[in-house]
Amino acid sequence: MKFRYARHALEKLCEQKFTRLCSITYKASSDEKNLKKWEMVQRTTRDLSFEAFKRTPVPISCDSVDICAVLNRHDQKYLILVAQYRAPLDSIVLEFPAGLIDKNETPTQAALRELFEETGYTAVESDIVHVSPAICLDPGLSDTCCCFIRIEVDGTRLDNISPKQHLDEGEDIDVILLPITDAKNILNSINELINEKRTTYGNMILDGRLYSFLEALSHPII
Amino acid sequence: MKFRYARHALEKLCEQKFTRLCSITYKASSDEKNLKKWEMVQRTTRDLSFEAFKRTPVPISCDSVDICAVLNRHDQKYLILVAQYRAPLDSIVLEFPAGLIDKNETPTQAALRELFEETGYTAVESDIVHVSPAICLDPGLSDTCCCFIRIEVDGTRLDNISPKQHLDEGEDIDVILLPITDAKNILNSINELINEKRTTYGNMILDGRLYSFLEALSHPII
Repeated sequence: MKFRYARHALEKLCEQKFTRLCSITYKASSDEKNLKKWEMVQRTTRDLSFEAFKRTPVPISCDSVDICAVLNRHDQKYLILVAQYRAPLDSIVLEFPAGLIDKNETPTQAALRELFEETGYTAVESDIVHVSPAICLDPGLSDTCCCFIRIEVDGTRLDNISPKQHLDEGEDIDVILLPITDAKNILNSINELINEKRTTYGNMILDGRLYSFLEALSHPII
Repeated sequence: MKFRYARHALEKLCEQKFTRLCSITYKASSDEKNLKKWEMVQRTTRDLSFEAFKRTPVPISCDSVDICAVLNRHDQKYLILVAQYRAPLDSIVLEFPAGLIDKNETPTQAALRELFEETGYTAVESDIVHVSPAICLDPGLSDTCCCFIRIEVDGTRLDNISPKQHLDEGEDIDVILLPITDAKNILNSINELINEKRTTYGNMILDGRLYSFLEALSHPII
């Protein structure tokens, strides 16, 4: 890139319980005198104080986990997905199980806990295959980041035969097992599933990280 | 799911040039009397008016395109990626080429235009392999959606031999060609690339949709 960049200031424009709208002031090395502005949304649910984000170097904060859990049961594999109403979209969204990382919790602890609460499936540390670094969700709009955690779930474990969700009051989440029989055909399978579910759910949307994962599975680059 | 949901009201809490923070009021069919609240961020850059989002049924609006472009040059394939400073993260972000859909533009027109502007590579309608439906980016926080568009770019076309970017004033984007030689090893390749680039870029973060695409390429479910 032609220039280097640095944050000069961060101002709160409006703060609610979970989110704040902010104005960023930053500068490019080409033009030290001209300060540039950018609008940004930030979650208020972090351990770090707002002060920590005011100037370069700004910490990268992992807000949540995305759990890519593959259930292995006899010779069959399934992706463990969840469907829930997402108020911002006024729609049911089909996505990887996910959740905010609690204070004093590591990303892998959060992943195992959220997988159990949202889907009822039990996995242990040694079932975790990969943990991504912090990856961003919508980098032009917010500084929200998640960790993407891949887990192989043993479907023959006793407690995974008839798993039971442990939802908080008010949570209403469906668990959907997507069979991976023919990876090349998985985008078609998911479209059929969405069309079938629309008769009961009404609107249904796919989450972006789930979509791009399925796109690569169904049409790998070879 | 146990209940059905509907949006009852949407209120602007704070509006800036590109974004607004809103408060959603919605209700579950279990509890018609109890209205629930949710905070939401919305882009102001849409064709549709704010009024359209006030009550169920709420339209799904595709704000932007994510361009998954595979460059084919002789026997080698590359993912065409971009790196740019993203002010919300105060970091260089490595991501698929992307951009907002202009008014009166279809998602595929936007994808071909943005690919050309950001990377210099030319593709035509018949190079487009897939167009996703609207997929959401951060469904707990915003109603932002994109279309994910897969394109096969002909690297032997004359105008793709030495492509030149057509950036707006102030845009500063590096094009990075990620060779796909050994798909199983691609997460390692990308980590090496990030470590190498950090010496010039400073902080560098991967976008979530790109990460999950690479995760599925490198560790398909078989």
